[in-house]
Amino acid sequence: MSSTSKIRVGVVGASGYGGLELLRLLSFHPDVQVTYAAGSQERDGTVADMYPFLSTYSHLQLEKYDVDRCADRCDAVFVALPSGASGAIAGQLHERGRLAIDLSGDLRLPADTYASWYQKPPVAPKVIAQAVYGLTEWNRNEIRGASLIANPGCYATAVLLGLLPAVKAKLAAPDRPLIVDAKSGVSGAGRSATLGGQLGELSDNFYPYRVGKHQHTPEIERYLAQFGLAEKSNEASHPPIVFTTQLLPAIRGIYASCYIPLGADVQVEQVVDIYRTTYEGEPFIRIHDPGKYPELKHVRGSNQTHIGLFVDNRTATLQVFSALDNLQKGAAGQALQNFNVAMGLDQTTGLSQLPIYP
Amino acid sequence: MSSTSKIRVGVVGASGYGGLELLRLLSFHPDVQVTYAAGSQERDGTVADMYPFLSTYSHLQLEKYDVDRCADRCDAVFVALPSGASGAIAGQLHERGRLAIDLSGDLRLPADTYASWYQKPPVAPKVIAQAVYGLTEWNRNEIRGASLIANPGCYATAVLLGLLPAVKAKLAAPDRPLIVDAKSGVSGAGRSATLGGQLGELSDNFYPYRVGKHQHTPEIERYLAQFGLAEKSNEASHPPIVFTTQLLPAIRGIYASCYIPLGADVQVEQVVDIYRTTYEGEPFIRIHDPGKYPELKHVRGSNQTHIGLFVDNRTATLQVFSALDNLQKGAAGQALQNFNVAMGLDQTTGLSQLPIYP
Amino acid sequence: MSSTSKIRVGVVGASGYGGLELLRLLSFHPDVQVTYAAGSQERDGTVADMYPFLSTYSHLQLEKYDVDRCADRCDAVFVALPSGASGAIAGQLHERGRLAIDLSGDLRLPADTYASWYQKPPVAPKVIAQAVYGLTEWNRNEIRGASLIANPGCYATAVLLGLLPAVKAKLAAPDRPLIVDAKSGVSGAGRSATLGGQLGELSDNFYPYRVGKHQHTPEIERYLAQFGLAEKSNEASHPPIVFTTQLLPAIRGIYASCYIPLGADVQVEQVVDIYRTTYEGEPFIRIHDPGKYPELKHVRGSNQTHIGLFVDNRTATLQVFSALDNLQKGAAGQALQNFNVAMGLDQTTGLSQLPIYP
Amino acid sequence: MSSTSKIRVGVVGASGYGGLELLRLLSFHPDVQVTYAAGSQERDGTVADMYPFLSTYSHLQLEKYDVDRCADRCDAVFVALPSGASGAIAGQLHERGRLAIDLSGDLRLPADTYASWYQKPPVAPKVIAQAVYGLTEWNRNEIRGASLIANPGCYATAVLLGLLPAVKAKLAAPDRPLIVDAKSGVSGAGRSATLGGQLGELSDNFYPYRVGKHQHTPEIERYLAQFGLAEKSNEASHPPIVFTTQLLPAIRGIYASCYIPLGADVQVEQVVDIYRTTYEGEPFIRIHDPGKYPELKHVRGSNQTHIGLFVDNRTATLQVFSALDNLQKGAAGQALQNFNVAMGLDQTTGLSQLPIYP
Repeated sequence: MSSTSKIRVGVVGASGYGGLELLRLLSFHPDVQVTYAAGSQERDGTVADMYPFLSTYSHLQLEKYDVDRCADRCDAVFVALPSGASGAIAGQLHERGRLAIDLSGDLRLPADTYASWYQKPPVAPKVIAQAVYGLTEWNRNEIRGASLIANPGCYATAVLLGLLPAVKAKLAAPDRPLIVDAKSGVSGAGRSATLGGQLGELSDNFYPYRVGKHQHTPEIERYLAQFGLAEKSNEASHPPIVFTTQLLPAIRGIYASCYIPLGADVQVEQVVDIYRTTYEGEPFIRIHDPGKYPELKHVRGSNQTHIGLFVDNRTATLQVFSALDNLQKGAAGQALQNFNVAMGLDQTTGLSQLPIYP
Repeated sequence: MSSTSKIRVGVVGASGYGGLELLRLLSFHPDVQVTYAAGSQERDGTVADMYPFLSTYSHLQLEKYDVDRCADRCDAVFVALPSGASGAIAGQLHERGRLAIDLSGDLRLPADTYASWYQKPPVAPKVIAQAVYGLTEWNRNEIRGASLIANPGCYATAVLLGLLPAVKAKLAAPDRPLIVDAKSGVSGAGRSATLGGQLGELSDNFYPYRVGKHQHTPEIERYLAQFGLAEKSNEASHPPIVFTTQLLPAIRGIYASCYIPLGADVQVEQVVDIYRTTYEGEPFIRIHDPGKYPELKHVRGSNQTHIGLFVDNRTATLQVFSALDNLQKGAAGQALQNFNVAMGLDQTTGLSQLPIYP
Repeated sequence: MSSTSKIRVGVVGASGYGGLELLRLLSFHPDVQVTYAAGSQERDGTVADMYPFLSTYSHLQLEKYDVDRCADRCDAVFVALPSGASGAIAGQLHERGRLAIDLSGDLRLPADTYASWYQKPPVAPKVIAQAVYGLTEWNRNEIRGASLIANPGCYATAVLLGLLPAVKAKLAAPDRPLIVDAKSGVSGAGRSATLGGQLGELSDNFYPYRVGKHQHTPEIERYLAQFGLAEKSNEASHPPIVFTTQLLPAIRGIYASCYIPLGADVQVEQVVDIYRTTYEGEPFIRIHDPGKYPELKHVRGSNQTHIGLFVDNRTATLQVFSALDNLQKGAAGQALQNFNVAMGLDQTTGLSQLPIYP
Repeated sequence: MSSTSKIRVGVVGASGYGGLELLRLLSFHPDVQVTYAAGSQERDGTVADMYPFLSTYSHLQLEKYDVDRCADRCDAVFVALPSGASGAIAGQLHERGRLAIDLSGDLRLPADTYASWYQKPPVAPKVIAQAVYGLTEWNRNEIRGASLIANPGCYATAVLLGLLPAVKAKLAAPDRPLIVDAKSGVSGAGRSATLGGQLGELSDNFYPYRVGKHQHTPEIERYLAQFGLAEKSNEASHPPIVFTTQLLPAIRGIYASCYIPLGADVQVEQVVDIYRTTYEGEPFIRIHDPGKYPELKHVRGSNQTHIGLFVDNRTATLQVFSALDNLQKGAAGQALQNFNVAMGLDQTTGLSQLPIYP
C-alpha cells in the first residue's frame, strides 16, 4: 500500500498515556499514516520534540484540537481524552462521517447510569445509542463496519473476558454475587501529577481506591448481561458483582482475581475446555493449563489477555485470574484492534509485537 | 536494669529476614541483651561484619546452632528457621527450661493437618500440644507465662485480626465461604536466591502462587473457629475460607482484602463500632473511619495492623481490608510482643518505633 | 526526665518529608515533647489524622504557622520549609531567643552566592552571619551552644563527609577538579505532586537534573575550603568540583561516587587509615575495609553515613563512595543530631535505631 | 519473501535474557525464520510453553545444543551463552560456514588481555583474530559480509558511542584519564537466581560492583584507540579510563555519565555539532540539544542510544551522558543490527519498534 493510499488517522488526547501508546502502536501499522495529533492545550513543537521516545514523529505537530482540521485531515480518529470531554468529540467526528473510536467511558453506558456513576453530565443519548461497544471478542459482528465505537474500560475488559465464558455456561450459582478483586498499575490513572502517584508514595505501597463506587462496575454488569445471558435481558437481571479496585506499585497492567460461587460440581479441566472453546481462534487470548496462572509480565507491552482457572472444591468456588496490559488490550491496543475490524483489516495488524520481558 | 540483670536472648536462624528483623528490634529493647545468634551453617565473623546495617552487633559472633551452647547462654530464644527444622529446636530448648518462641509453622497445627498441608513430617504431637498460639490480641491470657509459643504466620495474622471481630459477632451468612484475596511483598518468601524473586522478574509483575494449597489456610480456619466461635468447636465447624496468596512487587507487607457475605442488614458504622470495641486499648491495631482504608506504607517498619471496613449494600457484602508489615506484626514484631507478654513486660517494649515513611 | 521538664520542640514545615521524618524521630526522643507542628496552610485535624503512620501524635494539631504561638510554645524549633521561606522564619525565632535549626539552603551561603545559585532573594546577611553550619562531625565545637543552625544539604553532607578527609590530608593533585557523580532517591525532591516523580515515569528510569547548576555546588566548595584547608582561606582557593546530580528510581538515599586525581602514590590501606583516624569515635560514620563498598540499603532509615574507598593505580585516582539516607543524615537526622549537640545532650539520643532491612 | 526462502536462524543460549530478547526481536523480522533454539541443558517443551510471553514460538522446541543439528538447520546463529562457553561455539559454527554472532566477551579482546581480565582460559587466538568487532556505527565496513562477529558489551557500547566522537575530535586533554561513572539495570547480570538481585535486596538500593576490575575496561580502551585515534595505535597509547559500574534498582538500561577533561576552550554547541556530524544519518542514535539529557525510559525497549552533552566551563570538563537498553543496543538489538549489515539487509529491519513508555 503506498503512502498516499494509507488510511489517514488522528489521535486526539495525544499527550495522555492512551494517546502516546496509540502513537507508538500506529507507528508499526503498515496501512495507516498518522496525520493529526492534538491535545486540549496549545503546544509548540512536534511529537518527537516533546516525547523523545516517539522519534519517528519528527514531522507531526502537536496541535490544540480543532474539529474542522481534524475531520479534514483524517479518515479515522481515536479520541483518548478524559471522560466528560472525550465522548462529545467522538460524536462530533462521527457526525462528520469519520470513524471515531472513543477510549473514555462516555459512550459505554445509558445516560442515566453514566450520570450517577461518573457524576458528570452525559453525552446526548442519541450519540450513546449509536456507539457500538468495542469488546472485540464478544461483539465483533457489530464492530465490523461500525463508525462510532465505545472502547471498553481497562478493568472492564479484563473482568468481562475473564467472567463471560463462565457466566454464559451458567456455571455460577444464581443469586450470589461474583467477587472481583482487581489491581492496576499506576498508568491506569492517566498521565498527570498526583501526590499519591509519586514513586516515593506508591513504591512499596498498595491500597484500594473508589471502594464501592468505581465507574466500571455498571459497565461490567451491563455487558455481562448483554453478552452472557441467553436472551437480551434488562439490566436488573445481570449477575451482581462486588468490584474492588486497588493500586499496584507497578507501571502497567490489570490483574483481576475473580471468585464465582459454583452452582454445580465441575472440574477445572471442564472449565478450561469451556474457556478454550469460547475463545478458539482468538489470537489475543490465552487460556492457561490447569495449575498455571497468568503473570502481569507475560502480557506487558502486548495486546494479550492471559486467563488462568482454578476450582476450589473445598468451597465450590471457581477462581478466574485475568491479566492484561491496561494501555494495550485495556485501551490503545484494543482500540487499534477495533479499528482494524471496523476497517475490514486483519485484526492483528500492527499488534503482533510480543510482550517486553523482563 | 543493669546489663548484668538483662534477659539473655538468643536468635536461631539469624541470617533469614525474620532473624535479621529480630536482631534489629532487639537492639532497641531496653531489657534484653542478645547473647547468642546462630544459623544452620558455619560462619566466620560477627553479625556486624556480615550485615553492615546491624552495626551495633560488632561483638556478637554468628555461630552454627548448638543446643548446649544456646541453652547455656540464653534465658529465651527466638527460633526463626524454615518450617521442618524450626519447631523441633524450639521444643528442645523448651525442654531445657528456656522460653522458646518458634516463628515457623511447625507448632501451629495438629500433626496430621500439618503433614497434609506442609508435606513434611510433623514435630512430635506432645511438643505441638504444649505450644501456645501467639496471636497476642486474641490469646494474651494463655501467652502470659507460657514457655513455648507458636508465633502465627504472616498471612494468618493479617486475616485473623481482620476477620475475627466479624466472625465473633456472627455477621457472616452461614454456610457461605469467606473470600480472602491476599497479597504479600517478596520478603515473605524468605531470604534466599530465587529466579522468581529477582527484581528483573518481579518488578512490574504480579501473580498468584500456591493457589488452593497455601499452608496458612488450615491455620486461619483453625483459629477462626477457636477464637471466633462461642464454644470451642471441632475443626469441621469453622467457617470455610477461600484463601488466595499473590506476590506484590514490593519488599514488605501483607494486604488482605476479605469478602464476607452478610447474614443480615448492617451499616458500616455498626461494623466499625464492633471492631473498635473488640480492639479497644490495643496499641498495635487501628480501625479506620468509614471511607478510609489502610495503605501498606502506613504500617511498614512498625508492629501496627491497620483495618478498613466497607459494607456493599448492593450485594450484602462486608469488605475488610487488613494491612501489616510481614516482618514485624507478621513475624519478628509479634514474636517480640509475645516475648514481652510471656515475660510480664509491657507488650510495647522495644516496639514503639513508628512506620518508616516514605 | 519528667514530662514537664522535657524540652518543648516545634516543627515548622511538618507536612513535607523533612518535617514528617522529624516528627517520626522526635517520637523516639526521651528528652523532648513536640508541642507545635505547623505548615504553610490552614489544616483542620491532628497530625495522626492526616498522617496515619504518625499514630502517636493524636493530640497534636497541625496549624498554620504563627510566630507568636510558635515562640510561645517551644524552646527549640526545626524549620523545614522550602528555601526562600525557611531561613527568614528560623531567623525570626532565633531573634526571640529560641534555638532554631533551619533545614533549607537559606542560611548556608553568603547572600550574593545564594542569590546567584538559588535565583531567590537572600535572607538578611546579618541573619546568615549568625548561623552555624551544622555538619556535625566537622563543626561540633561551633554547634555546641549555638542558637541558629544552618543544617547542611543532603548532597552536601554526603559529599563533604566523603571528600574532606582526603582534601585535608592533601591527597588530591592541585589544580585538578574533583568529580562528584551523585544520585538521589526521589524523596530528596520533597513531598509534592510532579509528573516526573510519578512511579509510572520514574520507575525503571534514571536521568540527571540541574546539570551544571545544582545549588549544592557552592555549598560543597565553600565548606571543603573551610574545613579542609589548613588556614581559613577565601572562596577562590577551594578545590573546584564537577558536581552532577541524578535521579534514582528509589524512595530514599544519596549515593555520591567521587573521583579524586591523586597528587602522589598512595595505597588504599593508607587512605582507609586516614579516614578512620579522621572519624575515630564518630558513631554515625563507618569506613569500609578495602574491597567493600557502601550500599544504600545499609543506611536507609538510619542516621549512618557509610564510606568506601578505592585507589585505581592504573590512573592514579582515588575513588570515594559515600552513602546516606537523605531524610536522616541528609536532613532530619542530622538536624536532631545538631539539636542534641547544641543542647548538650548525647548526640545519639533518639537516633540509635538501625537501618530498616530489607 | 516466502517462508521457504527466509534466512534460517538459530539462537544458542535461548534461555538467558539476551537469547529471549533475540527471540522476541526475531519474531518481528520479516526475512528470517527461527529454526533452532538451544540452551546448555536438556529441556522438554516448546519455547512458548516455557516462556508464555513468546507465544508465537509454539512449534519451536527448546533443545540442548548440538553443533551438527545447529549447523544443519541454520544459515546464521546467535550465540548468547556466558563468557567462557560462548566464543568457542561461535567459532565452531563459523568454521562450518555459518554466520556466527557471539554476544559474549570471548571474541572481543586479545587472548592475553582476555585471560587477565576474565580470569578464564581464552578461545584459540586464531578464532579471536577472525572475529570482527560489531560496534555497528564505527565498524560497518568490516561487518558487511563478515561471518564471525564479536558483539560488543552493553557498557562498552554505551561508553564507546558516547566517547568516540570527542576522542576522535581530540577534545580531551592529553595524559588525563577519562572518568566513566556507569550504571546498569539488573538484567545486565543475566537471568540467574542471585541473592543480590532479589527485589527485596535491590529495590531501593544502589551500589558499585567489580570496582577497578570490570572486564569491559580493556574493551573500551582497546576500541577507543582503534576507532578514535588517527593511526591504528598499540594498546599502550589509548586514553586510559576510570570505569566504575554500579547497579541500579531497575530492570533494563545502561546509563553512562562520562567526564572528559577538555584540552582547550570549547562551547557545548560546537560539541553537539561534532557529535551530530559524526552520527549523521544513523537511525539508532540521537544527540540531544544543549540543555536536554537522555532518560533511560526514552530508550527502553528499543535499539536507540541517546546522548546528551554539557560543557562545565568552571572546570573545563565535557560531560557526556549516554543511555541505551542493555538488552537491545547493548546486546540482542545490536546483534540483529549486525546480522542485517552482514547479510546486506537494511540495518533497521526488525528493529523499528519504538521504546515502551511509560
